[in-house]
Amino acid sequence: MRVQVDGTLPNLIITRAVEVALAEDLGTRGDITTDATVPPDVMAAATFGARRAGVISGLAVAEAAFAALETGAVFEALVADGDRVEAGTVVARVAGPARALLTAERVALNFLCHMSGIATLTRRFVDAVAGTGVRIADTRKTTPGLRAFEKYAVRCGGGQNHRSGLYDAILIKDNHIVAAGGVDAAIAAARAYAGHMVKIEVEVGSLVELAEAMKHPVDAVLLDNMDLATLRQAVVMVDGRALTEASGGVALDTVRGIAETGVDLISVGALTHSAPILDLGLDFVPREIA
Amino acid sequence: MRVQVDGTLPNLIITRAVEVALAEDLGTRGDITTDATVPPDVMAAATFGARRAGVISGLAVAEAAFAALETGAVFEALVADGDRVEAGTVVARVAGPARALLTAERVALNFLCHMSGIATLTRRFVDAVAGTGVRIADTRKTTPGLRAFEKYAVRCGGGQNHRSGLYDAILIKDNHIVAAGGVDAAIAAARAYAGHMVKIEVEVGSLVELAEAMKHPVDAVLLDNMDLATLRQAVVMVDGRALTEASGGVALDTVRGIAETGVDLISVGALTHSAPILDLGLDFVPREIA
Amino acid sequence: MRVQVDGTLPNLIITRAVEVALAEDLGTRGDITTDATVPPDVMAAATFGARRAGVISGLAVAEAAFAALETGAVFEALVADGDRVEAGTVVARVAGPARALLTAERVALNFLCHMSGIATLTRRFVDAVAGTGVRIADTRKTTPGLRAFEKYAVRCGGGQNHRSGLYDAILIKDNHIVAAGGVDAAIAAARAYAGHMVKIEVEVGSLVELAEAMKHPVDAVLLDNMDLATLRQAVVMVDGRALTEASGGVALDTVRGIAETGVDLISVGALTHSAPILDLGLDFVPREIA
Amino acid sequence: MRVQVDGTLPNLIITRAVEVALAEDLGTRGDITTDATVPPDVMAAATFGARRAGVISGLAVAEAAFAALETGAVFEALVADGDRVEAGTVVARVAGPARALLTAERVALNFLCHMSGIATLTRRFVDAVAGTGVRIADTRKTTPGLRAFEKYAVRCGGGQNHRSGLYDAILIKDNHIVAAGGVDAAIAAARAYAGHMVKIEVEVGSLVELAEAMKHPVDAVLLDNMDLATLRQAVVMVDGRALTEASGGVALDTVRGIAETGVDLISVGALTHSAPILDLGLDFVPREIA
Amino acid sequence: MRVQVDGTLPNLIITRAVEVALAEDLGTRGDITTDATVPPDVMAAATFGARRAGVISGLAVAEAAFAALETGAVFEALVADGDRVEAGTVVARVAGPARALLTAERVALNFLCHMSGIATLTRRFVDAVAGTGVRIADTRKTTPGLRAFEKYAVRCGGGQNHRSGLYDAILIKDNHIVAAGGVDAAIAAARAYAGHMVKIEVEVGSLVELAEAMKHPVDAVLLDNMDLATLRQAVVMVDGRALTEASGGVALDTVRGIAETGVDLISVGALTHSAPILDLGLDFVPREIA
Amino acid sequence: MRVQVDGTLPNLIITRAVEVALAEDLGTRGDITTDATVPPDVMAAATFGARRAGVISGLAVAEAAFAALETGAVFEALVADGDRVEAGTVVARVAGPARALLTAERVALNFLCHMSGIATLTRRFVDAVAGTGVRIADTRKTTPGLRAFEKYAVRCGGGQNHRSGLYDAILIKDNHIVAAGGVDAAIAAARAYAGHMVKIEVEVGSLVELAEAMKHPVDAVLLDNMDLATLRQAVVMVDGRALTEASGGVALDTVRGIAETGVDLISVGALTHSAPILDLGLDFVPREIA
Repeated sequence: MRVQVDGTLPNLIITRAVEVALAEDLGTRGDITTDATVPPDVMAAATFGARRAGVISGLAVAEAAFAALETGAVFEALVADGDRVEAGTVVARVAGPARALLTAERVALNFLCHMSGIATLTRRFVDAVAGTGVRIADTRKTTPGLRAFEKYAVRCGGGQNHRSGLYDAILIKDNHIVAAGGVDAAIAAARAYAGHMVKIEVEVGSLVELAEAMKHPVDAVLLDNMDLATLRQAVVMVDGRALTEASGGVALDTVRGIAETGVDLISVGALTHSAPILDLGLDFVPREIA
Repeated sequence: MRVQVDGTLPNLIITRAVEVALAEDLGTRGDITTDATVPPDVMAAATFGARRAGVISGLAVAEAAFAALETGAVFEALVADGDRVEAGTVVARVAGPARALLTAERVALNFLCHMSGIATLTRRFVDAVAGTGVRIADTRKTTPGLRAFEKYAVRCGGGQNHRSGLYDAILIKDNHIVAAGGVDAAIAAARAYAGHMVKIEVEVGSLVELAEAMKHPVDAVLLDNMDLATLRQAVVMVDGRALTEASGGVALDTVRGIAETGVDLISVGALTHSAPILDLGLDFVPREIA
Repeated sequence: MRVQVDGTLPNLIITRAVEVALAEDLGTRGDITTDATVPPDVMAAATFGARRAGVISGLAVAEAAFAALETGAVFEALVADGDRVEAGTVVARVAGPARALLTAERVALNFLCHMSGIATLTRRFVDAVAGTGVRIADTRKTTPGLRAFEKYAVRCGGGQNHRSGLYDAILIKDNHIVAAGGVDAAIAAARAYAGHMVKIEVEVGSLVELAEAMKHPVDAVLLDNMDLATLRQAVVMVDGRALTEASGGVALDTVRGIAETGVDLISVGALTHSAPILDLGLDFVPREIA
Repeated sequence: MRVQVDGTLPNLIITRAVEVALAEDLGTRGDITTDATVPPDVMAAATFGARRAGVISGLAVAEAAFAALETGAVFEALVADGDRVEAGTVVARVAGPARALLTAERVALNFLCHMSGIATLTRRFVDAVAGTGVRIADTRKTTPGLRAFEKYAVRCGGGQNHRSGLYDAILIKDNHIVAAGGVDAAIAAARAYAGHMVKIEVEVGSLVELAEAMKHPVDAVLLDNMDLATLRQAVVMVDGRALTEASGGVALDTVRGIAETGVDLISVGALTHSAPILDLGLDFVPREIA
Repeated sequence: MRVQVDGTLPNLIITRAVEVALAEDLGTRGDITTDATVPPDVMAAATFGARRAGVISGLAVAEAAFAALETGAVFEALVADGDRVEAGTVVARVAGPARALLTAERVALNFLCHMSGIATLTRRFVDAVAGTGVRIADTRKTTPGLRAFEKYAVRCGGGQNHRSGLYDAILIKDNHIVAAGGVDAAIAAARAYAGHMVKIEVEVGSLVELAEAMKHPVDAVLLDNMDLATLRQAVVMVDGRALTEASGGVALDTVRGIAETGVDLISVGALTHSAPILDLGLDFVPREIA
Repeated sequence: MRVQVDGTLPNLIITRAVEVALAEDLGTRGDITTDATVPPDVMAAATFGARRAGVISGLAVAEAAFAALETGAVFEALVADGDRVEAGTVVARVAGPARALLTAERVALNFLCHMSGIATLTRRFVDAVAGTGVRIADTRKTTPGLRAFEKYAVRCGGGQNHRSGLYDAILIKDNHIVAAGGVDAAIAAARAYAGHMVKIEVEVGSLVELAEAMKHPVDAVLLDNMDLATLRQAVVMVDGRALTEASGGVALDTVRGIAETGVDLISVGALTHSAPILDLGLDFVPREIA
């Protein structure tokens, strides 16, 4: 079964990343332990098991790790990306030459555990604001080279993606404002420069700055590091004329309070820069090694 | 000042990774916010400041992020990789076109924070076993595509690298033993296959398995998931004939106990798969934007 | 002089494209005519001259073609990208080893003529709607591999970029609507899926479809292949609640009529898929070959 | 059906170019409109239709665009590259997941329309000289990165390729002659340098220069920007001792006159640098979206 | 039949190298002779025949050359890598479109002949020391870009690989010792720096240097350019405490003498830097071209 | 001093090949011996010395190996590519950080020794036919990935290059003739297919085949594996109407006899497929390590 994420994480991206990861692990010499000890005709089967409860992300990437070895190993996902699983859940099965299973195991797990870790942490934030209607978003604080995978994992956890990079939306920060010569000039320049399909958000650190920004038609305001009272006032000031995003040092124990101020969106860098892995392992089925 | 890590992290590796990260953030359209709002002739200066105490790693990578834009921005490291810093320490300065500083900022920080996070966590484990003579090592549980950077960061934190990949050392695990037809066959096959510069380690899960493995001349034994009493017995059984490595679920509050069993080395997957970032930020020097 | 487009066309993109083009022209054997006939120590100077009036785009790319040969040739732009020039204008000078000038000449010209051709055609459309306030935009109908260059050239000609690709904005067309089960379902799905920084445009082919689309808050409507009367009605129906874009078979002699219907934007595929080059040539300065 | 051009446009070249084009259109985020609105299990069929009469080129490239998504979409060409088609002709069919058809549509069309445009313009030049025995050839004035595709398209239009690049034949121009110290020296140097499988052509701008060049055994002479009377004299002077090529500002309304001067070959830069696309579109078969 | 070397030469490595080699031979224009003269529907069969006796290496690479053209050509190996064959032996068969066979022929042969040449020369050295228990090893003196293939070929010839590169083992040479400030300092530094899975070898040029090195626990000593008497003494001095490797100007007529000094290993640069090819050719089966 | 081969071996080709070779030797971990033992501030100087007499080729490539490390090491060539040197000649000097010299040493030597080996063997063949006017040429039997370097080395040795690949000239062999349906058909097809700048050579194995081929205007005939008497007759038959090339099992002791048959050119596969290296070494200048 090919997992249903092709459309949302381009397969060319998956293939290239898996090849990089395999090259990193295999070097030019390959898996010398397996080559030395495992005859090429030994077949095996194994299961991917969750050691802890969490949200799964990356099954198609794990599958691609085995596929890249072109040995005919067959991967079958038993859950779908985005599914919550309990500790002990078998999330996928793989069967084929024992050599292929052993050689691709770590690459498959490194993606799956990392992505599921992000999905799991995202889900915890999303659950923490359940019922408020507030959305949890990621940031550009991602691991270099893996942004597409990490943003996909955030979606698996129920989160929403902020802009993909510097290229697809405008986010005016304090230094842009200083360099442009003020909020007015910065927003005017952005509006003139941006195509009609590009949204503009302005970061503000105080209600004074917010008032300044709201003189202009902007799509969103990023309320940076404001306390709850200030956030509440900000929401009132904006009054639906722009989307409101809270950001800065958001933690699991503070996120609901922030959500209850009435902001539309809370962005959390930790989703991608500090999520621990979700522990999954590959368990070989004993009698199937033969 | 070019930071002194050229020799230990090949510059071609740094250049390529930084280009990948910049491509990921810039797309083909570039930094539209900065292009719109910051005139090309505005110069600026900024400092990299540690928001928390920790160990620094990745200064040369951060420098390379600015260098890749080829705008003449000058980066100066004020500490060295491996240095411990307090919260508030300025670790580097960068000066040049404001556009370049704003465009490369996130890529530089994503590397620096991620690598320093790993160095910092490693240092905490190393400090926890101080005085025991035990070394802390990493594993192959690294973020896909970044293994070289993460293993370098482990060294910055005082840790030691385990093998780089499947290609540079032999580590015989349970499934290899099953497929080979027993410990004897597996070690014999590995010895015959490996070149004379390749070390061999065998993973064992019990004292019975350890006894079996120690019938052969192996370079190291990996004592997997053993309790402290068993580890102590294992060390006695090995009696210096091989290096002893403990592994499996090692945490900051358990690592010293493990170290005191007398093992030579403790490997910790969390160093690379679950380290939160060390929070660093780029602060623009106000009057120098002009 | 390094031309001032670094920020708007990432230098890594320029470098890579120029290397591809040089590799294409040099193969692995190089410029055998020049190697055979031109001694390595002959120096030369040459000027890039416009054979026809037009708008210049791509000077930094032309410069990069000489720089990639790493022979110390010096390129100096005498006009800026976006400048209108008359036939006969010298737009840049290059001086250095005659070998380098002859070897990189065609690559430099191929970029410069192609990009200036697009800028020139764009400018003609922009001029044709002068005074109406209507903007001229490109499409995704670009030459494979050169989209970033072509969209930059459109900006040099005074045009505006539509979305960069399938990834940075949502444009719902008829087949999306059919597959989703209707306009309502399609827009709802898009709204739920898109991050808060992603705009949504809906393509409509009739006033009935437009009425359907305008029941929802969309950022823009693409009025596809409508006659002038219908466009006028459409503008009235939308009444400023969304940006209006006219598209479909727009030509230089019809564009002003379309603009006068009151639409906000007219997108023209021909800007990038059918622009003839602007003819520029490299003229060697006779006495400077010695 | 795999279209029969494998041998003449290496499949590795096709695959790489298609991947570049898809990457350009999909970014790392993919086709967000389609992902949002089209369920993954919707199947569809569509036809490629010519909106205008012309010559088809690039069917295998269009096919490869769908194949690269690895979704099992099936492409069937109904005409062959090089075929003339009328407006309204269905040139190919594609069926498979609606997502794949929508996502690859633009890349497939961008190649097919661009290449068919070149083939169509080439055919017009070839037809214009019908009966004269004169061949129409391309130049190195191609779109950067696409030379192989454009030269293939010229062949589809009945044209002939000039050299592929600077590496596969010698073409001595005026600046080479100046640098070498005269025609004699330049041709001698070229003859000594070139391998026995490399042809040598000399560009001349006047009958005096032609007389000079014809003192030497050269394979071809490029008669640059000569009027018809001069061309006729040139043909007489050469008298079959070398192939004669006319070049410089050749247009559809002047090409036959040039051909009738008796030259062997006419090269036309516009074939590749200024051909408008041949308009083709992808039409979804309504009832097959389900 | 897919030849059984997947595990020992990673398939991604094979694929990439074959693509590079095909690109080198096909350029962007392809095999113009075959395209011109061989109709696409002609099928053919051919056999790979050894013109001389030798040891085969590289069958999977040859197979990959045909596979890369994606024309359905079927390759069947009749012997295995490492097999000794007589002159006249048919080692493999290939059948499919005649175009594909002719186009990939040279790439397949260039790999197969080069790798088999190395395997054959290695086998001659291995045979020359038969019965002594001494192993023959390669060096880092390999052809740039092909180290993995050449080291694999050495294994096919019965040889053993020395380290793969500068990264997987430590080999301290005279200049390292000078720079470090003496043997003691160099070995101490290496021991402190190396992970526990990294072996250390020291190169010595005299018995005095050997005595110095043997004060430290090293894994191996490289006895560089010593005469037989000195080698014998060195073996006595080491007395089994480290592996002994002889190196320097080893030839087929001297290798047995060296082996009989009692060293463990003899490394031979010529295996990879100066092995002539093993001559193999592709013979078309006459009646099967039709 | 930058060696004067830029024009004849494109610098982009050199840079890429050197990066591949360094990546192969450094892995992702780098030169662990040098990093461990050599402090970063130690400077050194070394000379490249020829251990045997020969012809030098590849100085610019050796230089590029040090340049790629970007440490400021300075390389100075003391002879030029193509120069004959005696054993003991110092051909180049390099000075800079000891780390850089030690790390790049092997890559620089692997290129220089391999290329000089080819140049030296070529020169021996060229010298063996001195005075006959016959040229010595290479073939496509090159080491995969290094063809440009090897063909350049052949030129350094005084040889001439045959075609670069399958793409730049037509060489009709027996299987092409069979598939095309005879010599007439094959040559006619080639003539129709080839552009006017493409030469055509026909391989013949007997005088009968030669007579058949010479009925057509071909540029060259390849006389395959003919004995001397037959070659002489072939030269008489051709009588200057085409270039004559002898090929097949040419050796140093047979080449002059072949040359004296009057053929124009002798091609020798061994130049590139079986040349032993020219032994060169890097000697550190003792007192300059400090």
